Amino acid sequence: MAEPAKTLDGWYCYHDFRTINWKEWKKLSDEERGSILDEFKQLLSGWEQVQSDLEGSHGLYSILGQKADIMFFWLRPTMDELMEIETAFNKTRLAEFTTPAYSYVSVVELSNYLPAEKDPAEDPEIQARLRPILPKWKYICFYPMDKRRQGNDNWYMLSMEERSQMMRSHGMIGRQYAGRVRQIISGSVGFDDWEWGVTLFAHDVLEFKKLVYEMRFDEVSARYGEFGTFYVGQTMEKDEIDPFFAV
Amino acid sequence: MAEPAKTLDGWYCYHDFRTINWKEWKKLSDEERGSILDEFKQLLSGWEQVQSDLEGSHGLYSILGQKADIMFFWLRPTMDELMEIETAFNKTRLAEFTTPAYSYVSVVELSNYLPAEKDPAEDPEIQARLRPILPKWKYICFYPMDKRRQGNDNWYMLSMEERSQMMRSHGMIGRQYAGRVRQIISGSVGFDDWEWGVTLFAHDVLEFKKLVYEMRFDEVSARYGEFGTFYVGQTMEKDEIDPFFAV
Amino acid sequence: MAEPAKTLDGWYCYHDFRTINWKEWKKLSDEERGSILDEFKQLLSGWEQVQSDLEGSHGLYSILGQKADIMFFWLRPTMDELMEIETAFNKTRLAEFTTPAYSYVSVVELSNYLPAEKDPAEDPEIQARLRPILPKWKYICFYPMDKRRQGNDNWYMLSMEERSQMMRSHGMIGRQYAGRVRQIISGSVGFDDWEWGVTLFAHDVLEFKKLVYEMRFDEVSARYGEFGTFYVGQTMEKDEIDPFFAV
Amino acid sequence: MAEPAKTLDGWYCYHDFRTINWKEWKKLSDEERGSILDEFKQLLSGWEQVQSDLEGSHGLYSILGQKADIMFFWLRPTMDELMEIETAFNKTRLAEFTTPAYSYVSVVELSNYLPAEKDPAEDPEIQARLRPILPKWKYICFYPMDKRRQGNDNWYMLSMEERSQMMRSHGMIGRQYAGRVRQIISGSVGFDDWEWGVTLFAHDVLEFKKLVYEMRFDEVSARYGEFGTFYVGQTMEKDEIDPFFAV
Amino acid sequence: MAEPAKTLDGWYCYHDFRTINWKEWKKLSDEERGSILDEFKQLLSGWEQVQSDLEGSHGLYSILGQKADIMFFWLRPTMDELMEIETAFNKTRLAEFTTPAYSYVSVVELSNYLPAEKDPAEDPEIQARLRPILPKWKYICFYPMDKRRQGNDNWYMLSMEERSQMMRSHGMIGRQYAGRVRQIISGSVGFDDWEWGVTLFAHDVLEFKKLVYEMRFDEVSARYGEFGTFYVGQTMEKDEIDPFFAV
Repeated sequence: MAEPAKTLDGWYCYHDFRTINWKEWKKLSDEERGSILDEFKQLLSGWEQVQSDLEGSHGLYSILGQKADIMFFWLRPTMDELMEIETAFNKTRLAEFTTPAYSYVSVVELSNYLPAEKDPAEDPEIQARLRPILPKWKYICFYPMDKRRQGNDNWYMLSMEERSQMMRSHGMIGRQYAGRVRQIISGSVGFDDWEWGVTLFAHDVLEFKKLVYEMRFDEVSARYGEFGTFYVGQTMEKDEIDPFFAV
Repeated sequence: MAEPAKTLDGWYCYHDFRTINWKEWKKLSDEERGSILDEFKQLLSGWEQVQSDLEGSHGLYSILGQKADIMFFWLRPTMDELMEIETAFNKTRLAEFTTPAYSYVSVVELSNYLPAEKDPAEDPEIQARLRPILPKWKYICFYPMDKRRQGNDNWYMLSMEERSQMMRSHGMIGRQYAGRVRQIISGSVGFDDWEWGVTLFAHDVLEFKKLVYEMRFDEVSARYGEFGTFYVGQTMEKDEIDPFFAV
Repeated sequence: MAEPAKTLDGWYCYHDFRTINWKEWKKLSDEERGSILDEFKQLLSGWEQVQSDLEGSHGLYSILGQKADIMFFWLRPTMDELMEIETAFNKTRLAEFTTPAYSYVSVVELSNYLPAEKDPAEDPEIQARLRPILPKWKYICFYPMDKRRQGNDNWYMLSMEERSQMMRSHGMIGRQYAGRVRQIISGSVGFDDWEWGVTLFAHDVLEFKKLVYEMRFDEVSARYGEFGTFYVGQTMEKDEIDPFFAV
Repeated sequence: MAEPAKTLDGWYCYHDFRTINWKEWKKLSDEERGSILDEFKQLLSGWEQVQSDLEGSHGLYSILGQKADIMFFWLRPTMDELMEIETAFNKTRLAEFTTPAYSYVSVVELSNYLPAEKDPAEDPEIQARLRPILPKWKYICFYPMDKRRQGNDNWYMLSMEERSQMMRSHGMIGRQYAGRVRQIISGSVGFDDWEWGVTLFAHDVLEFKKLVYEMRFDEVSARYGEFGTFYVGQTMEKDEIDPFFAV
Repeated sequence: MAEPAKTLDGWYCYHDFRTINWKEWKKLSDEERGSILDEFKQLLSGWEQVQSDLEGSHGLYSILGQKADIMFFWLRPTMDELMEIETAFNKTRLAEFTTPAYSYVSVVELSNYLPAEKDPAEDPEIQARLRPILPKWKYICFYPMDKRRQGNDNWYMLSMEERSQMMRSHGMIGRQYAGRVRQIISGSVGFDDWEWGVTLFAHDVLEFKKLVYEMRFDEVSARYGEFGTFYVGQTMEKDEIDPFFAV
């Protein structure tokens, strides 16, 4: 029996992708659209309060391509809060003009593949990474992934040592992108259909391609990575909401 | 020819996942919504009577993510009763405001991989496990699974001894979660598209991730497990129905 | 080049799965629903006449789970008659309240893997099996399947002798269920997406699970079986139609 | 680098499968239905003129099963003409009562696996096969296929000699069905999602099953064939259109 | 760890496939259709201005088959501009009469598998290829692809030398089609679900088939290529828009 990796788990994550039903949205009067956006912004204000209290974080993003038009990314200390947010948004009038496109349930995760220098519970950097306030970087990328279990390429049959060594090499690629790409890994085993969700932030969208492509040549991805759908988009600031929904 | 495992089969299971059509639901008057929920609660009272007579069990759950909003889980001594429940619910007014999202048909199953200490028909603990009253633990997780039949990783070509040994090791992981995770295995060979359904209950939702992830490193999962869609949610108590549907 | 199996082919088969649009159905008046069911029963009477003339057979079944609510299974000497039935049903008013869920086109098939004792054309039992009147047993199970062609597990590259030997062992499992499970194998190579359809009938629904699970350990399934979607349900007698559709 | 097969390419092919929206169709008055069918028959007359000028061919078929109700099969010397036909049909009133179900874009193809006795450009039989007028045989079967590229079963890594030898053996099976099954192979590499489309015609629908099943034991199919969806149906003659659409 | 390929990245690409809702489109009056097309042509004029300023490029194409009716292909120096174009088109009245069918997000890419003769930043041919003005050739073909990572056929585990050698052989096939097929490779790692998008242009549509088929026998495709959906169509010139939408 292989030795399982150990994980530190932080805030729960809910990625919620939606398309906009522009046709129906355009049928409304300016007043109706305004009042619908007001209702939504009130919800948003609540989330901002939570974030300024450091009791969670959230982001709103516009997504390029037909897969989705917008994405919400909410993080909270408990899954219960995510369920409340989901249901609250579903009951808004704005939700009536969106169609669910994809969603992902996970929890911020750090693994013990990388050697800890101190007790994680005492390490403020680790504690901050487990409860991340989302950066206001311009671009976002999200994709879910698995470690492969196929014939001779079975990650879960490798020894802890083999896995740690590969993860270290993998981490070294990531470290070269420090300051250019910020990454949040969230675990979803038992919660959703893939094993991890990867959320990346960058100032230059091309960094996503460079990082993911470079990693693909690394054994841990080349032999053991299985990737789901990729979404790419932009942070939508509060003052960009009105222009985005203006018709 | 490999020696087949033998199974004990208990109550039939029907997992029924649905999304709520909030847009149409909101169009109703308070009176209409109230009367629709009253009709539903009457059905629920009937199920509660069955459960207090120990002639079946049921649960209602809210699910996180776009895959579903709610899940029903019904258990009954016969499949006929499940068909009646399904059709009865489909004919309610509440059903008009839901869209089918996924369903699963199975039967509670215990296998003979673990050595029996006494005649199962005489063992009250085994008899109780075959006809489980669902625990009112806070969180639920459901996923279907297969044993792999692929190249050198073919579960069904292993000897009974090899399979028993791996299942024992697997069971030992599960036992470490006693009191923290409760598990109902239901067999669906011949009934639905996967071979088993796994329903887990926990007080702390993180236990699902810990258990499933730890098991994934165990050979029986690592080499022989194929997993379907994962659903995670919360028990919805009777007095939580009105708040959930309030708009 | 491997020696192909030879087949005897009987009646053509059409399995037609549908969901009921209960919401629209409930909007009708009792009179309208009655007249729609009358029109349908007239069609049914025609099919009954065909069956009593031994010129075909048919069954109507309720299916458990969201995959379908009802299934029709028609058998006829020619595919032309199945096309006529399909189109005729599609033009009924009842069809407007159903949504196609799945269908399967095949022909009753017996193979020469099992040694024939006499000339099949002279053997009344074989002739009866090629043109089966569907039994009125309580439960039905349907699934399509392929023989695998994958790496070292390639059924079609085996010799006739190897295949016959495995099919004999397989048949021996089936024979243990005689009187408890009745099976109709229909071939669909060139007609539909899988190679065979398997239709099982039982008095006790648990027999489906026992039979299919036991067979899965047999090499012919373990190494060479690929299985599609499983449907399970109940025979709906003529006098059960009104209660089923009553709202 | 393996030596590529060479191909002769003839008329472009467009297979267009559609379901009929009977519910909406029935809502029309007899006059409206009549005028819609008249408009369609005018289009059909144009296609018939093209065919009698030997500048293309076409067929209309009814399909058994839920995958489609009807199929059009058009052949033309240029892809431009197929685009015009597609758009013209899409603009008819009849098209409003159909839903696209599947389509396939390809070009009639003959390969050089079989040794040519004379210069193909001079061979009238080959020229006729490249520009086939569709036979009015009763039954039709369509399926797309690939040659496998998987582990040790990689068609495109075989030598020309190995491929030719297997294709010859394959062709010999086909030749046994001469007069009973007529086959049109059309290549779709670069045009659609599979590499070839296979269209078969027969007087007896059972011949499709016999031919495809026999071929499946041949190495070229057994090891190297990957098959898509199978459609089976009947030729719908011009005078069968009114009865088919009569409600 | 394998040595990653290096890439030069040019303009960002957005391929947007849509079907036309002809039924709704026909319901409009000539005036409404005219005004909708006028609004669309104004957008188009803006894109033309960008193109004549060499600050981007675009094309509109009609697609054969049910997968899509039209495709937009936009190229811009930043992804931001593509997001603006997407949202702007989604807000037009014409968009209401289209249904999203498929989309692809990528960036024009040149790799260092082929040896550079000079500094790419100084090479005007390379610079032009990174920012291509789309040719007005008659036919277009689009498909996404991956390099395979499967068992012994794992592109990302090969050495740089092995990969370069295979890519050179691959490139030599492409070069034989110079003047007949023009190709734009765009990388989508981190942006969309496949690793590359391939867009081909030709004067004769048959060249697509010849090129892609010939390449399939080359080891880099035969062993390492995984292909997505293929779309084929025609350039729609500005003066072809009115005829295309005329009903």
